[in-house]
Amino acid sequence: MPLNITLDKEQAEPLFLQIAARVRTAIATGHITPGARLPSARVLAAQLAVARGTVDAAYALLAGEGAIITRGSAGTVVSGSGERIVLAEPTPFMFSPEAAARPKPLPFQMGLPALDAFPRKLWSNLIVQAARGLQPADMANTDPIGLPALRHAVAGYLAVARGIRCSPAQVLITAGFQGALALVRHVLLRHGDPVWLEDPGYINTRQALEVGGARVVPVRVDADGLRVASAVAAAPAAKLAVVTPTHQCPTGVALSLPRRLELLAWATDAGSWVLEDDYDSEFRYTGRPLPSLKSLDRGQRVLYAGTFSKVLFPSLRLGYLVVPPELSVAFQRAARLTTLGLPVLEQLVTALFLEKGHFARHIRRMRMLYAERRRALATALEAAIGTHASVEMAAGGMHLLVRLPASANDSALVKRAQAAGLAPSALSSLSIAHDAGQGLLLSFANIPAEDAAASAGQAAAILDPG
Amino acid sequence: MPLNITLDKEQAEPLFLQIAARVRTAIATGHITPGARLPSARVLAAQLAVARGTVDAAYALLAGEGAIITRGSAGTVVSGSGERIVLAEPTPFMFSPEAAARPKPLPFQMGLPALDAFPRKLWSNLIVQAARGLQPADMANTDPIGLPALRHAVAGYLAVARGIRCSPAQVLITAGFQGALALVRHVLLRHGDPVWLEDPGYINTRQALEVGGARVVPVRVDADGLRVASAVAAAPAAKLAVVTPTHQCPTGVALSLPRRLELLAWATDAGSWVLEDDYDSEFRYTGRPLPSLKSLDRGQRVLYAGTFSKVLFPSLRLGYLVVPPELSVAFQRAARLTTLGLPVLEQLVTALFLEKGHFARHIRRMRMLYAERRRALATALEAAIGTHASVEMAAGGMHLLVRLPASANDSALVKRAQAAGLAPSALSSLSIAHDAGQGLLLSFANIPAEDAAASAGQAAAILDPG
Repeated sequence: MPLNITLDKEQAEPLFLQIAARVRTAIATGHITPGARLPSARVLAAQLAVARGTVDAAYALLAGEGAIITRGSAGTVVSGSGERIVLAEPTPFMFSPEAAARPKPLPFQMGLPALDAFPRKLWSNLIVQAARGLQPADMANTDPIGLPALRHAVAGYLAVARGIRCSPAQVLITAGFQGALALVRHVLLRHGDPVWLEDPGYINTRQALEVGGARVVPVRVDADGLRVASAVAAAPAAKLAVVTPTHQCPTGVALSLPRRLELLAWATDAGSWVLEDDYDSEFRYTGRPLPSLKSLDRGQRVLYAGTFSKVLFPSLRLGYLVVPPELSVAFQRAARLTTLGLPVLEQLVTALFLEKGHFARHIRRMRMLYAERRRALATALEAAIGTHASVEMAAGGMHLLVRLPASANDSALVKRAQAAGLAPSALSSLSIAHDAGQGLLLSFANIPAEDAAASAGQAAAILDPG
Repeated sequence: MPLNITLDKEQAEPLFLQIAARVRTAIATGHITPGARLPSARVLAAQLAVARGTVDAAYALLAGEGAIITRGSAGTVVSGSGERIVLAEPTPFMFSPEAAARPKPLPFQMGLPALDAFPRKLWSNLIVQAARGLQPADMANTDPIGLPALRHAVAGYLAVARGIRCSPAQVLITAGFQGALALVRHVLLRHGDPVWLEDPGYINTRQALEVGGARVVPVRVDADGLRVASAVAAAPAAKLAVVTPTHQCPTGVALSLPRRLELLAWATDAGSWVLEDDYDSEFRYTGRPLPSLKSLDRGQRVLYAGTFSKVLFPSLRLGYLVVPPELSVAFQRAARLTTLGLPVLEQLVTALFLEKGHFARHIRRMRMLYAERRRALATALEAAIGTHASVEMAAGGMHLLVRLPASANDSALVKRAQAAGLAPSALSSLSIAHDAGQGLLLSFANIPAEDAAASAGQAAAILDPG
């Protein structure tokens, strides 16, 4: 719709403020109504013979006031109330299906817990409780290494669930696993230091270490997990080894006991460190739960990282890092120098969630739900895919691996899938130096059992469009 | 009180779990009652003939469950309900008066806004609103550069309040100023790159850059702010200059217009960058508000950082960074690789606070309150201190500077003050290479006008114990 705006270019008031004022008036007087689409900044700028940036500034101002909503390519519209904008507005910047909030998780999208099954009501009740209890002391500076009550709760949880004995002084609350990685990089790594990484492995870990200046040493993963012997052969003096021993990402294999002892022996002899990324150990469906690598760490060479992103939800952006006593002062200093701490409200709510026992209950509920969704999707996939590929079910985790013949092109299949609104990941895209073969990683966390057949059908159609 | 616990060391159950179970039973059966003090880990370990760490683990577990409260040196007590622990527990780790949450801000403590005057009720109502409105989409991954609605609101605020025209795509929501600094370091600085810093200057900036491997070039500050000419002479090819142009930290001087143009010209010619730390520009009490350096930045060499810690409260841990268009993709990538985004709840609430106009109102209220507290403390100090020193009132900010004769020892005075429960800062401790003289920095933000005389008296007693 056209906007009949006239500007007074002689007037002292900046043009972008004049434009904003005119639009405000037009809305107030009902000349433009909620939902009405405004001309693009380019068009309006041309119409008013002002710089494009001038209109951008006016629109940014109005959007800031909640008067309008900028929908990127979808244009700019007049909003009803300022309020819903916050939740209603789509995210203009999207780096990958993983990177941005979306109205609904895409089928097979990795790294997302079952958002439909999260106890939102309970969680928001705890938020309300924490909010009502906020005291001035809670508004001052936070403890750089995390809210004491949350660190205590995490230490207690790890003692019971992962056999890790640590004092709350060894626990740092981090901005998810990325935050833990940033601290580890900061304290332990100097530019060019060699670091063992599992190959194939978690892409974010690799990227964060590479941009941090570390020299990544890719180590092949076999049925027993990381091949420690070949790692020692390749880089005996590596400063750090990052591993996912419980449930290797993405192959799902567990690091065998001999390999664990081999790894710990190397770290002790070489004076190196091991970072255990225990990202989704909570979810295991067959056999006995595996103890953590850290629980075997007599020599205190293991740093243990866990995240709430997989068990609770990603936008909580909270994780934790347990460091050996000899490192805790250095990590406390690093936390103070790099982040000065994390927002207090999420920490208060998460601490309440753990202290009141909701955390343990939620994990039990999700374990059962995921076991069901996993079984349903695997069964449906085997029926739908037939001979095209084989479905590998790891003992734990939140995704299945569909192995494809070497002749397949998993990256091309992923592109085709994305065009169809699906979000599988390509196995080959996670391999660094060693060919991990072709395959699709499919998360089952957000696929209800009753939708398994339909989703499997979509996946099969991608694999065999013919 | 003694604990009559017996352990079965033959049993499979780990000893720390047995100890925890016994204590739980003792509480449940009323053998030990809420508030009762438990034996220290050391004592109990000796009594049970187990390792100290075993008892630590048991206590950590019980604390995590909310059954007991560990008060550090104050001992370990049985709690009433798990709930209040979160807010009641003191912070065991304290690096400095600034570093940790405290029951009440100490007199003169720098960097804290008036916590007594923050609209807690309103804020918690917004939290409740955001909590009730949480959707699954809000629980998925957050936008690495910040909640779109908050970036829009910040862009709108900066357009009006600081004369900065930027698109929300140039705005990154950061973990306070430290988060902004980490991103800047990550994107712009390589090991050993020279960086101009104001001398004296903000200690956290200096430390964060030094640990990040930058080569700090201290530049003297005079009545016109940073001496650009001597900086150019010292390090013409510096990669970055970090400045506080509105209200230099800690001297309070404003960077003069000629110096601003000189600085921008250098950055443009040298292809270098300027980081404007506009940490408390909202608070100015005399004369016209100064435009931001960024508003003069024709060459797009200025990165602009602001924080909500001073205007709202520190434990919110939110700030923002505006980057030139040519850098926005690099910063978006850095945010994705380093933090993956910030917790969504604080961003939702802050966005609501800005959109609904509470932010502008709050700033106006605080400006008036601080003007009053500033005047009251300055008047009281002049009366109390007499000839011992002179009180310097900068045009803005949240603190006064008490200049001391060169013969004084401000660090010794700060130690004496801390012993008396006061938290001034020493001017000399903020100087890097150039002698900034002796002086005490006294924040007036948390000193109600009616307490000014008493606080000034305490300060005077420190200055002149005789």
